[in-house]
Amino acid sequence: MKPKVSIITLGVADLETSLRFYRDGLGLPTHDYEDGASIVFFELEGTWLSLYPLEKLRDEAEVEWSAGGTQTITLARNVGSPAEVDATLAEAEQAGAAIVKPAEPTFWGGYSGYFSDPDGYLWEVAHNPFTDLT
Amino acid sequence: MKPKVSIITLGVADLETSLRFYRDGLGLPTHDYEDGASIVFFELEGTWLSLYPLEKLRDEAEVEWSAGGTQTITLARNVGSPAEVDATLAEAEQAGAAIVKPAEPTFWGGYSGYFSDPDGYLWEVAHNPFTDLT
Repeated sequence: MKPKVSIITLGVADLETSLRFYRDGLGLPTHDYEDGASIVFFELEGTWLSLYPLEKLRDEAEVEWSAGGTQTITLARNVGSPAEVDATLAEAEQAGAAIVKPAEPTFWGGYSGYFSDPDGYLWEVAHNPFTDLT
Repeated sequence: MKPKVSIITLGVADLETSLRFYRDGLGLPTHDYEDGASIVFFELEGTWLSLYPLEKLRDEAEVEWSAGGTQTITLARNVGSPAEVDATLAEAEQAGAAIVKPAEPTFWGGYSGYFSDPDGYLWEVAHNPFTDLT
């Protein structure tokens, strides 16, 4: 398999709420979106992000969804400095995100904090002085 | 926020099992990995993928993890043709993945199927003739 993820799709409870958060709050650019569309794509650098109603995503994949809830994914946005981590978390909070972990120095020598989107999906905002993934 | 996801981190039950699946089974290239490391990074085109023990990920983010399990994320690998979808699913199955939805034509005019990794994380393998994200 070619080493690339093309799209990350988040199953969301309310498409409009999530669209407002990511498009209007965080400023992510949509791709060919028209009002009322049943899916939203954001054209990001590298891997794209998409939003799709949770129920439709489950139907689409035809998976038996356990109620276990033990899986966890985080999406990281790496930025250029600790100050930029703080600014990005503040921007997310202003957009309506919950700050689940305020930024602080990490054990691995970086600086990071976490926010969650309207569905509780976790984003880490991090500064990593050793590997540049900004 | 700059429109980019730097890293997708999957919380996994057993790091060694997941490492074997993604590195040895799917052939993803690790980044600076040494035996026994507590985290694995795969250097992908665009957004990187990482594996981290579920418990550590939860501690790290300091989040109260609900048992709800209503969140769902899928990761898509877009390829160049329906035949390549079939081949990629076969490769994943050989690597130990469960095929949760065999490939078939989709309602939106593409062709896709789903497999799940050792933790049940869902990957869609898709051919989209309209938007090239291969």
